[in-house]
Amino acid sequence: MKIDLNADIGESYGVYKIGADEQILEYITSANIACGFHAGDPSIMRRTVHMALEKGVAIGAHPGFPDLHGFGRRFMQLSPEEVYDLTVYQIGALQAFAQAEGGRLHHVKPHGALYNIAAADSELADSICRAIYDVDQKLILYGLSGSELIKSGQRIGLKVANEAYSDRHYHSDGSLVSRSDGRSMIKNADDAADRLLKMIQSGKVTSVEGDEIPVAIDTVCLHGDNQDALTFAQTLHRKLNESGIRLQTI
Amino acid sequence: MKIDLNADIGESYGVYKIGADEQILEYITSANIACGFHAGDPSIMRRTVHMALEKGVAIGAHPGFPDLHGFGRRFMQLSPEEVYDLTVYQIGALQAFAQAEGGRLHHVKPHGALYNIAAADSELADSICRAIYDVDQKLILYGLSGSELIKSGQRIGLKVANEAYSDRHYHSDGSLVSRSDGRSMIKNADDAADRLLKMIQSGKVTSVEGDEIPVAIDTVCLHGDNQDALTFAQTLHRKLNESGIRLQTI
Amino acid sequence: MKIDLNADIGESYGVYKIGADEQILEYITSANIACGFHAGDPSIMRRTVHMALEKGVAIGAHPGFPDLHGFGRRFMQLSPEEVYDLTVYQIGALQAFAQAEGGRLHHVKPHGALYNIAAADSELADSICRAIYDVDQKLILYGLSGSELIKSGQRIGLKVANEAYSDRHYHSDGSLVSRSDGRSMIKNADDAADRLLKMIQSGKVTSVEGDEIPVAIDTVCLHGDNQDALTFAQTLHRKLNESGIRLQTI
Amino acid sequence: MKIDLNADIGESYGVYKIGADEQILEYITSANIACGFHAGDPSIMRRTVHMALEKGVAIGAHPGFPDLHGFGRRFMQLSPEEVYDLTVYQIGALQAFAQAEGGRLHHVKPHGALYNIAAADSELADSICRAIYDVDQKLILYGLSGSELIKSGQRIGLKVANEAYSDRHYHSDGSLVSRSDGRSMIKNADDAADRLLKMIQSGKVTSVEGDEIPVAIDTVCLHGDNQDALTFAQTLHRKLNESGIRLQTI
Repeated sequence: MKIDLNADIGESYGVYKIGADEQILEYITSANIACGFHAGDPSIMRRTVHMALEKGVAIGAHPGFPDLHGFGRRFMQLSPEEVYDLTVYQIGALQAFAQAEGGRLHHVKPHGALYNIAAADSELADSICRAIYDVDQKLILYGLSGSELIKSGQRIGLKVANEAYSDRHYHSDGSLVSRSDGRSMIKNADDAADRLLKMIQSGKVTSVEGDEIPVAIDTVCLHGDNQDALTFAQTLHRKLNESGIRLQTI
Repeated sequence: MKIDLNADIGESYGVYKIGADEQILEYITSANIACGFHAGDPSIMRRTVHMALEKGVAIGAHPGFPDLHGFGRRFMQLSPEEVYDLTVYQIGALQAFAQAEGGRLHHVKPHGALYNIAAADSELADSICRAIYDVDQKLILYGLSGSELIKSGQRIGLKVANEAYSDRHYHSDGSLVSRSDGRSMIKNADDAADRLLKMIQSGKVTSVEGDEIPVAIDTVCLHGDNQDALTFAQTLHRKLNESGIRLQTI
Repeated sequence: MKIDLNADIGESYGVYKIGADEQILEYITSANIACGFHAGDPSIMRRTVHMALEKGVAIGAHPGFPDLHGFGRRFMQLSPEEVYDLTVYQIGALQAFAQAEGGRLHHVKPHGALYNIAAADSELADSICRAIYDVDQKLILYGLSGSELIKSGQRIGLKVANEAYSDRHYHSDGSLVSRSDGRSMIKNADDAADRLLKMIQSGKVTSVEGDEIPVAIDTVCLHGDNQDALTFAQTLHRKLNESGIRLQTI
Repeated sequence: MKIDLNADIGESYGVYKIGADEQILEYITSANIACGFHAGDPSIMRRTVHMALEKGVAIGAHPGFPDLHGFGRRFMQLSPEEVYDLTVYQIGALQAFAQAEGGRLHHVKPHGALYNIAAADSELADSICRAIYDVDQKLILYGLSGSELIKSGQRIGLKVANEAYSDRHYHSDGSLVSRSDGRSMIKNADDAADRLLKMIQSGKVTSVEGDEIPVAIDTVCLHGDNQDALTFAQTLHRKLNESGIRLQTI
């Protein structure tokens, strides 16, 4: 049994620092690197790509809405064509840093509100997947497990990675409980790790409504921008190792 | 004898339209496409790349300072590292549209204040040239004929294209007369064409100070954003053809 | 009988020019001036305020979503608090130019997607109205005739101006037919003028569904950014004058 | 004897937090609040104004270059007119939050590279001072002690506050040692406090070149965005109190 641990990193901007990127890179196997639209800037992208390559972590583009002020978490009503275009653009920008640093781009995972809308809206999901495919059809799509985004990736011919969350609660339909809902987060790292082990081993998770629901899981998201990110990363890393589950990128 | 005609295009932004891109593409052999920092946006980049490929025009990235408000014409005091990073970023973004549209990136030409400072400052010139080289060493550097930028490109191992201007006056040291100087522009298209023919045939131009100075010339810049751009393009195109000079990209 | 003619102006940005502001100012009695978020920049704001004051046209702030790329026409999911804050900010910026030019701010009209969402969403309408009231309770609110925005303004204690459109079709519920609907626009200036006269004289308009519906009308919007804006402005101006309707700001 | 303690606050942006604003407000008498160009956003501006008013701290606008990425610390070659316009804009934005929160704007202090260039360039200094005067001639100008900015303010008719630094070294000509110079900062809070007391009591400071130079001092800048900001604030506050120097805004 094996699993990929991914985290969103490179989310600082100019003098503004967020996340313990250098430390979190010790615990993950894939990095989703912000591309300058919702977070990140060219200098941070280069340094983040450099660090990830040094630590042998797979590099992914993490495109988001053009909304630094809202950190890409606010929905913007863009056309499918606009979503296609901003995805191509952001993948390209990160890909160039991978080239310049002697590495290569491994995957793409949309960020924040773009991730959420793409999980539910098949037209926008198609925009994202076609953008990825058109830039480089070998890139792997990371998306919410079982979502419209994953279905679109499969339809278009991308290799996909079903992403599950160890620290987020699910509804019975497989969607994530909104962050604005008090019940959304699992705050204890041990609880999250146990929950994750169960998901990997049984392919199931308990929803907030109390149902056992199936969850395809190829990769798990660690958050890089909250306070307890490191504790979570360490705990998950340790418990997965203890359970004999191999940590490895897709 | 042959010459490359290049123009800066793709400089619109959102609802804001600038330039007669579609028409100017009929007359040029290389296009410098804005990359979203000083002009252009992802959708315009895609459409511009698409049009250029359709018309068989070579595609170049046209990176600039991050200053849409000033159209990249205002100097910004960035570090050499920041200049390197923003050049990689912008090349990457455009390269991805070239990939997505089934083409390939051919050259890079810095824009506006970045072009001007790189012509004079060898450290910033090196930042730009290393960025180009690190992303793709086959990319051709376009820069002001004989400038520090061209010298840096040669030093670093890039193929270079010496760019001359048919519609700008030169000082005796080979630098361009500043746009803020009333004498900077040649406003008559026939005068510009004759001047260009002389440059191609004799390798020389007459400076505002009255000297005959040598000008290496591989490519000529047509401006896409001024009123008479099309007249200029047509006139140069016609006169070059009449003189038996082949129009061809580098 | 009297009516106010307003137009959105000052929508250029840096080198990007939109609208025939100087000419349109000849025909209107109130100007809605972009505040730098969806269009406009500090220099354009100053020059636009200056021109409006010279021509005796009342000055209004025209706040929009922070989306220059989308010209404020793309809905962004902001919180009521964020909408309050961006409204205060933009009013303040324009108010300072009014002060610096020796004039005073007369009204506020939200722009584009912000105008549309405020017409329908009473919570966001309240955010906008409270922002206006808190900065200066004498400012007049311009909003879609009979909309939630107008109701909110009345509730909060602002003087309001019901805005009608001479060149847009209405649904029977009083809402505007979406621009994405082929039937939305009235393209002939004479038709628009006749329609407007009827609205002013009878207080009614015929909806696309064929109903005669009441429309409160204090002010009419002329568009400054489309091709025929000037023709429309001239035609409306002339026909209103011929009908003895006084043109005067609120 | 009395002195004003000022600090730059409200420099966070969206999810990005910088500075211990709430705590630093306990120790200062005047706050320079970022206006959204180099730092700050509308929501942070409102909350910062609110906090400052609650604590009885005088509110100032802190306009900077339009360069969030460089935190306003990178010189941009703007025209005097552009500098005038961006100063009016930013003052206006902050002024509106002061109005909305029931307070009033007290002063204006340019930020970062704008502060530095205005200290040396009398034409840009005039642009800033005229902008302040034109918006509200009662606003007080904060600027580097004895600089061109202060001279311009006096010439134009503004009340001025000469600002000195307790934690920065001076050259013998009264200019600050550049931050890029290793000698620029005084890192020990007690040293800084003693240095400040001497400046207040004797009107003199020792330059890095070893000269005793006169320094007019009405206000002292505490930095809100470095690690030791709070320690510095507390130490200065305590030592000034112990020396019987009254802390009071201009």
